[in-house]
Amino acid sequence: MKEHGNEEPVFEIGVVIPRRVVQEKDESCDCAYVLVKEFEKVGFVVERVIGIADEFIKVNNSKSVKTLKFDGKEIHWEIGENLLLKLESLEIVKQVFPLHDEKKRKKLLRSWALQWWDFTSQPIDEIYSYYGAKIAIYFAFLGMFTRWMLFPAAFGLTLQLIDFGSLKLVVLPIFFIMVILWAIMFSQFWKRKNSALLARWPISSIVAVDQGYKISGRKSSSWQPPMELMKVFETDRAKEKEIFQRHEWLGRLMRFRNDAIIIFSIICLQLPFELAYAHLYEVLDSDIIKFGLTAIYLFAIQYITKIGGKVSVKLIMNENNENTEKRADSLVYKVFGLYFMQTYIGIFYHALLHRNFSTLRQVLIQRLLLSEVLENLVENSLPYLKYSYKKYRVRHKKNEKGEAREKFQFSSRVEKEYLKPSYSASIGEELEDGLFDDFLELALQFGMILMFACAFPPAFAFAAVNNLMEIRTDALKLLVILRRPVPRAAATVGAWLNIFQFLILMSICTNCALLAWLYDEEGKWKIEPGLAAILIMEHVLLLTKFGFSRFIPEEPAWVRANRAKHTTQAQDMCSKKLLRTISGGVKTFREEKKLD
Amino acid sequence: MKEHGNEEPVFEIGVVIPRRVVQEKDESCDCAYVLVKEFEKVGFVVERVIGIADEFIKVNNSKSVKTLKFDGKEIHWEIGENLLLKLESLEIVKQVFPLHDEKKRKKLLRSWALQWWDFTSQPIDEIYSYYGAKIAIYFAFLGMFTRWMLFPAAFGLTLQLIDFGSLKLVVLPIFFIMVILWAIMFSQFWKRKNSALLARWPISSIVAVDQGYKISGRKSSSWQPPMELMKVFETDRAKEKEIFQRHEWLGRLMRFRNDAIIIFSIICLQLPFELAYAHLYEVLDSDIIKFGLTAIYLFAIQYITKIGGKVSVKLIMNENNENTEKRADSLVYKVFGLYFMQTYIGIFYHALLHRNFSTLRQVLIQRLLLSEVLENLVENSLPYLKYSYKKYRVRHKKNEKGEAREKFQFSSRVEKEYLKPSYSASIGEELEDGLFDDFLELALQFGMILMFACAFPPAFAFAAVNNLMEIRTDALKLLVILRRPVPRAAATVGAWLNIFQFLILMSICTNCALLAWLYDEEGKWKIEPGLAAILIMEHVLLLTKFGFSRFIPEEPAWVRANRAKHTTQAQDMCSKKLLRTISGGVKTFREEKKLD
Repeated sequence: MKEHGNEEPVFEIGVVIPRRVVQEKDESCDCAYVLVKEFEKVGFVVERVIGIADEFIKVNNSKSVKTLKFDGKEIHWEIGENLLLKLESLEIVKQVFPLHDEKKRKKLLRSWALQWWDFTSQPIDEIYSYYGAKIAIYFAFLGMFTRWMLFPAAFGLTLQLIDFGSLKLVVLPIFFIMVILWAIMFSQFWKRKNSALLARWPISSIVAVDQGYKISGRKSSSWQPPMELMKVFETDRAKEKEIFQRHEWLGRLMRFRNDAIIIFSIICLQLPFELAYAHLYEVLDSDIIKFGLTAIYLFAIQYITKIGGKVSVKLIMNENNENTEKRADSLVYKVFGLYFMQTYIGIFYHALLHRNFSTLRQVLIQRLLLSEVLENLVENSLPYLKYSYKKYRVRHKKNEKGEAREKFQFSSRVEKEYLKPSYSASIGEELEDGLFDDFLELALQFGMILMFACAFPPAFAFAAVNNLMEIRTDALKLLVILRRPVPRAAATVGAWLNIFQFLILMSICTNCALLAWLYDEEGKWKIEPGLAAILIMEHVLLLTKFGFSRFIPEEPAWVRANRAKHTTQAQDMCSKKLLRTISGGVKTFREEKKLD
Repeated sequence: MKEHGNEEPVFEIGVVIPRRVVQEKDESCDCAYVLVKEFEKVGFVVERVIGIADEFIKVNNSKSVKTLKFDGKEIHWEIGENLLLKLESLEIVKQVFPLHDEKKRKKLLRSWALQWWDFTSQPIDEIYSYYGAKIAIYFAFLGMFTRWMLFPAAFGLTLQLIDFGSLKLVVLPIFFIMVILWAIMFSQFWKRKNSALLARWPISSIVAVDQGYKISGRKSSSWQPPMELMKVFETDRAKEKEIFQRHEWLGRLMRFRNDAIIIFSIICLQLPFELAYAHLYEVLDSDIIKFGLTAIYLFAIQYITKIGGKVSVKLIMNENNENTEKRADSLVYKVFGLYFMQTYIGIFYHALLHRNFSTLRQVLIQRLLLSEVLENLVENSLPYLKYSYKKYRVRHKKNEKGEAREKFQFSSRVEKEYLKPSYSASIGEELEDGLFDDFLELALQFGMILMFACAFPPAFAFAAVNNLMEIRTDALKLLVILRRPVPRAAATVGAWLNIFQFLILMSICTNCALLAWLYDEEGKWKIEPGLAAILIMEHVLLLTKFGFSRFIPEEPAWVRANRAKHTTQAQDMCSKKLLRTISGGVKTFREEKKLD
C-alpha cells in the first residue's frame, strides 16, 4: 500500500501491540496481520514497524467470524464486531494514539515554537489545523492576554521606577482603577476575539448555527437530553414536564451538595493548614527553620491537591452533568477552589491580617519569579526525564534478554513517540488534558497580579515577561517533548473565563482593602463592628448576585428537550415537504408519459 | 360576500374614510367602493358602515390603471400599486386599525378582567392569541411578580405588626437578606418562565431555532445586517471586516454620546431641581405652602418628562440601532434614567442625607398609596374621558349641521371603537406602545419597595395589593376602554429585566446604607473621608463590572453578518443538494423510459 502517489504518506494514528514470543507460521491468522489487512480494506495507508519491545501499526476503521491467534491464544472475531475495540478489550492492542506529522511538526517548530523574537504573534490557524480547536483557543487566549498585559506592565514599572513623591498616594488609586478597567475590558474583548476565531474555523458553522450556540459557554453546544427522558415525550405529554423538572432539580441538588462538600472541606481542612503555615512563617526567626518548614509544606500540598483532585473527580462522576464539557467545567470549578485557597490564603494572611506589606511583596516576588520559573522548568523537564527513563528501561530490558546491541538505537519515530509522555492533567486524565494545568497556571497568575495590584505594581511586568516565554515553551513542549494530543473540540475557554471574571470581582474588593490599609499608616482609621458587619453582608450579597445566574439556568430542561425535538422535526418536515413536491412532479411526469 | 357560512363573520381591521359631500352617480369610480371591491377580490369579508362623521370599511390586500374619484378629486391608481397605501398617503383613508372580536372580547372579559377573586391566575394563552406575545408577556410577568411578592409582603407585614423588642435589630438585616435573595431568584426564575412561555407559543419555534435566540435579550432575535454592508461581502473579503468594524464602533460611539448627553443633562438640570424641591419641602413649615409647592412641582415635572422623552426619541433616531427592538430598548434606558432621578432622588435626600426616617416613611406611604391609586385612576379614567369628549364632539358637530337626532346613537361598534383612544405610550407613539407606561410603573414600584426595604418593610404588602388590582384594571383598560392594540411580537420583556437587575444592585447598596444609619442612632459611627472615598470607588467599579458587558457585545458585527449569510447559504445548499439528488432520480427515470 506504499505506492500511494509520489508523496510520502502522513500517518495519523499509532497502534501499539506487544511483540509476540511465538511466531505463527500461517500469517493470515496473526492478529496484527489481520488488523493491518482490515485497516487496508477501508482504504487506510498502513505501515508495520517492528520496534524493540512492541510492534507498531501506523494508520493514516474495519467484517467474518474468524479465529485469530496471538501468542498462542485463540480469539474469536464475530461478524460486525469492531476488531480494534475487541483487541483493545483483550489487551492485545496496548494503545491507540495520534501520531505527529513530521512535515507539519517541523514547519510549526520553525514558524511557532522557535520564533522567540516574534513577540506574541502565533500561526493560530495552523495550530488549529494541527492540534484542534481547544489547544488553538488556549494559545490565542495566552497570546491576547500577554499582548494586553503590556499596558499594565508598563504602567506598573513606571510606578516602581519613577518616584512620584507626594503624588504617590494619588497615582496608586489611578493605577488600581486602570488595572480593573483593563481586566474588565480584556474579558469582554476576549469573547469578541473568540467568536471571531470561531467564525474563521469550520467548528463555528456546525456548532454555532445548529445548536443556537452561545459564546458565554453557559448553553452547552452539544446538549442531548437523556434518552430515557426523550421517550417520555412520545408517551405522555402531561407527565413530561414534571419528570424533566425532577430530573433537572435532582441534578442541580447533587451538584450543590458536591460543591458544598468541596467548600466545606476546603474551609475546615485546608484553611487551618494554610493559616498555620503562614503564621509559623511569620513567627519563626531562623531562616533555616523557615526553609525546612517550606519544604515540608511544599511536600504536603502536593499530596493535598492530589487527594482533592481525586475526590473532586469522584464527586463529579455522581453528578448528571449534561455532557463532558459541563462535567469538565464542574471539575475545573472544584479544583480551582482548592488551588485558590492554597495559592492566595497565605498572601491574604500577610496582606490583610498582619498588614505586613514588606512580607507581602517578598512573598509575591518569590511566587512570581521563583515558582513561575521553577514551574516552567518542571513542566518542561519532567516529561523529558520521564521519556528518557522509559527509553532507558526499554533498552535495559532488552539488554537483560541478551539481544544484539545495534537494535537499541530507536530508528523508528513511532516507537519514540510511543515512549513520549502524553499531554495529561495532573489531577486525572479522564476529564481534562494538559490544558487544565496550563490554564490553571494562567488563572493563578492573573489572580496573583490583579488581587494584589496595589501592593506590588511591577508584578504585571514579571507576568508579561513570563507569559512571553510561556507561549514558546508551551509550544516546544507540545511539539517536541510530548506525544501529539488527541484533538479536542471546544468553542470557548469554558469555565476559565468565569474564573477570570470572579478573580476580577475579588480583586476589586481586595485592592480596596489594600488601599485602605496603605493610606491608614498609623492605624487611625477605625470601623465600628456594626458597620464592618454591614459591609461584609453587602459584599456577600453582591457576590451572590453575580454568581446566582450560574446556578439556575435561564431555560428549563424540558424546554430545551422540546426545542431539540422540534428542530429535528422541523428539519424533517422541510425535507419531506420538498420530497413530496418533487415526487409529485415525478408522478405528474409519469402521468404525462402515460398520456403520450 | 356575507353568505360566508352560518357564523357571523369576525372583522379584524377597520378602515376609516371621511363621509363624502358629493355623492358620485357612478359607484364603480367611487374610492370607497373600489377599495371594498379590492378587499373582496383577495377573499376578505368586507362590510361597509356609514357612520355619523366617517365611513367605515370593516375587513377580516390588491391590480389595473384606474381613475378613481373622491369628493370630486381624481386619483390615478397605477397597476401593482397598493391602493390602501396610496389612499393613506393621499389622506383619503384616515386610519387603519385592528378591530375587537366581540365574541372573544366578551369571553376574555368574563374569564380574565372580571375574575377579581381569581388571585393572580390569568388565561395567558388566550391573551396571547388575542393581543399577541408582547402584551401576554407583560401580563405573565405582572402575574408572576405579584405571586412572588406575597412572600416579602407577609414577612414585611409581620415585621410591622409584631413587636420584636430587642430582636428588632436582628430581624431587619434578615429581612433585608431575604428580600434581596427573593429579588435575585425572581429575576432568574422569570427567565425560566419566559422561555417556558415561548416554548408553548409558536413564536419560539420560529425565532428561537432559526436565529440562535437568546432569552437574555442581548442578542437580537431578528437582526438583519444593513443591506449596503452585506453587499461588501460579495465584492471584497479583505475590506469587509474593517468596514463592519467601523460601522459597529461608530454606532456604539453615537450611542455612548447620546447616553452621555442624557446622563449629563439629568445630573446638571434635573438633579438640582429635584434637590431644591426636596430641600424646600424639608425646610418649609406651613402645610399650605407645602401643598402649593407640591402642586407647582407636579406641574413642572409633567413638562420636564415630556421634554426629556422627546429629546430621547430624537437622539435615538440618530443611532444606528440594529432593529426596532434595540431602538426601543435604548429609549427605555434613557427615559428610565429620567424617571429614576425624578422618583428616587427626593427619597434619597430624606433617607441618606438628612437621616430623617419619619419623613422618609411618610414620603414612601404617600407615593405608594396616593400616587399608585391616583395613577391607576388617571390611567383608566383619562382614556374614558377622552372617549366621551370625542363622542360629544362628533355629536356636537352633527348637531350644528342640523342633521336628524336619531342618527346620534352610535349604533355601529366600529365607529365607537374608532373614537376610543389607542394604547399608546406617554413619551411618544413611534417606538413604544402603552406597555411602556405599564412597565415603567412596575419598575418604579419595584425600585421604591426594594431600595428602601429596610426603612419601610410593609411597603411590599401595599405593592402586592396594588398589583393584584393592577392585573384586573389593566385587563379592563385593554378590553373595554381602549381600541384593540396592534399585536406586537416580542420574545422577552427586553430592557426592563436589565433595569430590574440594576435596581436589585442599587438596593443592595442603599439598604446597607439605611441599615448603617438605622443602627447608628446617635451618629457615633464615623467613616474617615479616605475610607469613604475608597468605598465609593469600590462601588463604582463593581457597578462598572456589572454594566460593562451591556456596552460591548460578545460577538463582532462582521461575525454575525457572516453567520447570517452562511446560515442561508447552508440552507440553500441543503435544498439544492436534495433537489439535485431527486432531479437526478427523475433523469434516470426518464432515461429508463427511453430505453423502454
